[in-house]
Amino acid sequence: MALANRNLVTIDDLSSGEIEAVFSLADKMADSMDEQFGVCRGKIMASLFFEPSTRTRLSFETAMHRLGGNVISAVDIGATALAKGESIADMARVVGSYADIIVIRHPWEGAAKVVADYAGVPVINAGDGGHQHPTQTLCDLYTIKKERQTIKGLKIALWGDLKYGRTIHSLIFALAKFGANILFCPTPGLEVPENIIKKLTTEYGGELEKYEALDQADKRGLFPLDAIYLTPGSPHQLAMMPNVSIQAELKTGVDALYVTRPQKERFATAEEGRELNKRYPVVDKRLLKGKVFKKTLVMHPLPRVDELAYELDADPRSMYFKQAAFGVPVRMALIALLLGTKEVSILKEDFFPQIDYPLYRRGFGVRCPNPRCVSIQASETKYIKPEFKIVNRKPLTLRCIYCEHGSEPKYVASSDWHEGRLANKKYHSAGSHWARKIKPENLIIFDSESEAEAHGFKPSRYARAHH
Amino acid sequence: MALANRNLVTIDDLSSGEIEAVFSLADKMADSMDEQFGVCRGKIMASLFFEPSTRTRLSFETAMHRLGGNVISAVDIGATALAKGESIADMARVVGSYADIIVIRHPWEGAAKVVADYAGVPVINAGDGGHQHPTQTLCDLYTIKKERQTIKGLKIALWGDLKYGRTIHSLIFALAKFGANILFCPTPGLEVPENIIKKLTTEYGGELEKYEALDQADKRGLFPLDAIYLTPGSPHQLAMMPNVSIQAELKTGVDALYVTRPQKERFATAEEGRELNKRYPVVDKRLLKGKVFKKTLVMHPLPRVDELAYELDADPRSMYFKQAAFGVPVRMALIALLLGTKEVSILKEDFFPQIDYPLYRRGFGVRCPNPRCVSIQASETKYIKPEFKIVNRKPLTLRCIYCEHGSEPKYVASSDWHEGRLANKKYHSAGSHWARKIKPENLIIFDSESEAEAHGFKPSRYARAHH
Amino acid sequence: MALANRNLVTIDDLSSGEIEAVFSLADKMADSMDEQFGVCRGKIMASLFFEPSTRTRLSFETAMHRLGGNVISAVDIGATALAKGESIADMARVVGSYADIIVIRHPWEGAAKVVADYAGVPVINAGDGGHQHPTQTLCDLYTIKKERQTIKGLKIALWGDLKYGRTIHSLIFALAKFGANILFCPTPGLEVPENIIKKLTTEYGGELEKYEALDQADKRGLFPLDAIYLTPGSPHQLAMMPNVSIQAELKTGVDALYVTRPQKERFATAEEGRELNKRYPVVDKRLLKGKVFKKTLVMHPLPRVDELAYELDADPRSMYFKQAAFGVPVRMALIALLLGTKEVSILKEDFFPQIDYPLYRRGFGVRCPNPRCVSIQASETKYIKPEFKIVNRKPLTLRCIYCEHGSEPKYVASSDWHEGRLANKKYHSAGSHWARKIKPENLIIFDSESEAEAHGFKPSRYARAHH
Repeated sequence: MALANRNLVTIDDLSSGEIEAVFSLADKMADSMDEQFGVCRGKIMASLFFEPSTRTRLSFETAMHRLGGNVISAVDIGATALAKGESIADMARVVGSYADIIVIRHPWEGAAKVVADYAGVPVINAGDGGHQHPTQTLCDLYTIKKERQTIKGLKIALWGDLKYGRTIHSLIFALAKFGANILFCPTPGLEVPENIIKKLTTEYGGELEKYEALDQADKRGLFPLDAIYLTPGSPHQLAMMPNVSIQAELKTGVDALYVTRPQKERFATAEEGRELNKRYPVVDKRLLKGKVFKKTLVMHPLPRVDELAYELDADPRSMYFKQAAFGVPVRMALIALLLGTKEVSILKEDFFPQIDYPLYRRGFGVRCPNPRCVSIQASETKYIKPEFKIVNRKPLTLRCIYCEHGSEPKYVASSDWHEGRLANKKYHSAGSHWARKIKPENLIIFDSESEAEAHGFKPSRYARAHH
Repeated sequence: MALANRNLVTIDDLSSGEIEAVFSLADKMADSMDEQFGVCRGKIMASLFFEPSTRTRLSFETAMHRLGGNVISAVDIGATALAKGESIADMARVVGSYADIIVIRHPWEGAAKVVADYAGVPVINAGDGGHQHPTQTLCDLYTIKKERQTIKGLKIALWGDLKYGRTIHSLIFALAKFGANILFCPTPGLEVPENIIKKLTTEYGGELEKYEALDQADKRGLFPLDAIYLTPGSPHQLAMMPNVSIQAELKTGVDALYVTRPQKERFATAEEGRELNKRYPVVDKRLLKGKVFKKTLVMHPLPRVDELAYELDADPRSMYFKQAAFGVPVRMALIALLLGTKEVSILKEDFFPQIDYPLYRRGFGVRCPNPRCVSIQASETKYIKPEFKIVNRKPLTLRCIYCEHGSEPKYVASSDWHEGRLANKKYHSAGSHWARKIKPENLIIFDSESEAEAHGFKPSRYARAHH
Repeated sequence: MALANRNLVTIDDLSSGEIEAVFSLADKMADSMDEQFGVCRGKIMASLFFEPSTRTRLSFETAMHRLGGNVISAVDIGATALAKGESIADMARVVGSYADIIVIRHPWEGAAKVVADYAGVPVINAGDGGHQHPTQTLCDLYTIKKERQTIKGLKIALWGDLKYGRTIHSLIFALAKFGANILFCPTPGLEVPENIIKKLTTEYGGELEKYEALDQADKRGLFPLDAIYLTPGSPHQLAMMPNVSIQAELKTGVDALYVTRPQKERFATAEEGRELNKRYPVVDKRLLKGKVFKKTLVMHPLPRVDELAYELDADPRSMYFKQAAFGVPVRMALIALLLGTKEVSILKEDFFPQIDYPLYRRGFGVRCPNPRCVSIQASETKYIKPEFKIVNRKPLTLRCIYCEHGSEPKYVASSDWHEGRLANKKYHSAGSHWARKIKPENLIIFDSESEAEAHGFKPSRYARAHH
């Protein structure tokens, strides 16, 4: 499948084969940078940043200029369109009629999808709230690949704020897609959100082992390890063995340590920030003296604050400035491919085909419970209809198609049962055995009793039974 | 008259023939977009936005890039030059020594004229307060012309905030210039300002009929119609007939419905905003079901808030995204013509030559009463001398040459009468028959008694006589 | 020495020969502006403005566009990187991996040096707090040279805020370098800082005569003259003669009057601002009627506020808009030379070779006392080690290598005396004869007793003796 006219909203939009094609073009472009000037001659990239950013925006704009294209840039839009109450869809349509490609950063999760839905030109997500930041992930993977030739089978440790860091969320699925093992080393209180873990194990296979469950002998471990994700391709002996083996396995070394800063701007309260800041572990020379880190690539999406010591800057294991620099050729390749001014042949199909979940698209009954989801914002509800993938029936679990947040609504009804008979308009507990018999296409879902009743439904005898 | 090195400050700066020349170049450019790259090679456009804007600025910058030119852009200047107390004239001179053409948006009315006066390069007004936004008008006219082939004789309804919407003010004169009939449908309280109505009927001829005055039978009408402007070229039967005929005439259909958002940022108070918001009529499917709207082009300068329903987006009558998209070829044509990198032949002369009013340019006695006029701002009074067109003598009416706001100063004197004789320095009521005998070149005008007395004048016996 | 890959952080980075080479290229470029498009084809300039600025930034960006290069621009970084706590060094490294050349403006003094230290590409200081603004100085010198053919031997008066105006600080050294005489005419309370005067007389030779000391007869003088700097090359008769001669000498005319605005944003308090504003002298037609100003070039770096009357704009002596316009060719030449896309031959070596002061680089004991120095900011101390030039021993005077602020620390010790013998860890008054015997390489310097004692030193009997 060619990449021209496609979008990159989440990392799932690209198969591993497609990602490798981007990388191979990036390699070529990096090798002959001067020859790329003109590849996008006369093309215009719109760079729309609703959140402040220097690094990512300048990286994209540099990439476009290196290709000989032009840039229109709006970094003041927080103060602008919003002030006038304009919707994301309207902005997307208008800018899509100006530019040939759009790069969007927005604080609302799912905003990039809305832009992609309405712009009519290729859209690249440069970060949507705490959701995803797929081009950062491409730079991360590209760095690992340049240094280790492959990603498959590597042991990659993710360190720090795994809860709010959108770069982490994109990266997890990408690593799984390429068959890497993931060591989760969160700052306590900043663990990976449950819905991401669920998606990981459901859609990419493999197993997640909680470190705590395995290790009875030595709770302190080598570092603040919380859980290990083992890729399906790797020998599953780890999970089969007592915890000492994990220690042994780990001692063969971590391939990359991916450090993140605390995403304070997304912390619920300033207090949460202060509290977590105290516990936030610092990656420094002392930590990296451990055998396990002897050949570890030290990575960081930048900007760093205090979590990564400056004394490491001269260390040959430090990759973070390389990661940033690789942003230019990687983004150049991506832009040229989406604009169709370059083509590459995709060598292999993806290992993990995306699952075709049934959809809940009635547009009523449930709204996404994520307060940062684009679908529930006042300016957007005028035209966005809530829509969810039904990713599980026991418990009934919805995934918002915008922000990918997971939720477990409590009540259901069937459009089949009450067709034409008002007396049959009954709702049931989502956990009742009765509820699970409703066909997906007949499902009516409510996130509260009051919501159900507002639509004229009355409780059935299964309305309060749970499982 | 060639367009090279000219300014576009108000829509009056272009004759209808010149506007049609811009449109014919825009047509050509839209048809061969790729061939335009290079038309402005090496040229630099300065894009100076003292008010936030995404749409208009990006449209201009896109246009310049599509022509192969470069852009220097300042969107932060509210915080900059003003903070350092710099005047608009100084900024204009300096930027004029950098760039080949300047696009300016500013909250002060008349600011674009000041830039044009000092820059030494062509200047395009991208909106100056509530005064004008002539390139939006060009896009509006271009859209109508593309859809209806002509503007002459059409019935165009203006809907919503006709008081503060600068796009409306530019559009009214342009429609009159092209011989369209205008239906004014303001939100009550947001009617077109008096000075605009006066200028319309005085300088473009035609007649304005208040709907209320005509229609005794049915006050509700088809929609919130306030007044009708009938172009001089059209058969005047409407004004000659009882109100039923208007209804009949209207039932043959409105050609375009031009909707505007409430310009809340220019409302006097937040309360005025809340109050007006309640009364603001929404254009939606229901309204457009009326026969009169069967073939109506639905237009909006965007951004919209709540006044135009999303359900209309897919309606073939909806033109607003086209209007935005046309901004690029129209602005491309305009930029290339003003820079002189393209030429067009102007086919016909304008129907309405501009009137050569006498000027009041003594620089004292009256100041523009418009609080948003550039001429009275502290940073600008250092070098701007107030100047007015004397557009009427009965009552004495001045029009500020900067913001075009009209005012009726109360007192006058004659430089002829008191020449050399201090005892003769008397001032009179502007409405007195005596006052009207003063030749324009001898007029001394005061907006208050204290102003007159501060300049050494004493009241005559006509000082308090009013008509 | 070629200019390619060099930085311009302070005006001292360029010899007078190099400056003249820049000017000769600027002349050529101004004469054939259209031919320069393409000189920097494919090159990218990053324009990073941590302080608001329109003029300087647009001038640089215009210059780069006229050369056919591209620009990535960040004017929002105050709100960005800082908000995330990023250091200047990290930003410099990352942007240095994107762009080919960096232009930086920052409120912290010495910030441009840090960027130059870490970026890996040429860096141009576009103003770092109250420290320097060397490209403004190039425009100033270029203007004088265009009008007077030479700078050597001219009498240049500096007028207004000589304390906080960074353009003044760069200009003083440049004028001395070119052999001009300088008349200091500060607003009382805004005299040139002591450390600048010291550097001037120590490193550029010549003499500084306080006007007050010379003139017993008439304290009012011709204008608010404070001191005169006489270049070494000029006949020193002035200093040898009674004050009447100075008056006489001055009456032969001032070659240029360089006016500055009060740098209110750097005033310590709003009150200081109000107070000084009252005393701030206005340059207007009346002042310039004096014989001494008959052929004087009136210069100003702009923006002006009230210190320079608009009535002078049409005066042929007024140079300030020319100064601004010359910014484009001068910056074009500079950018092309630093990028190495143009070369010039340097005709002569500098008259004033830079002095090779010994360095104090222990990284402890003293910190720069300048509150706006980059080296003491919380986000930068993680990696910046304080470092000073020892510019004098009596009194012991340090000059911060970042902000060039001078300080006289109070206490010293010797690393030689106490080597291996803790009992010998004694500190002495910096002014004691004992202290001055310590070799520079053995000096340990403390800015307070508590600092000395915190490092395990005890007072010697010379600790409190001063001189």
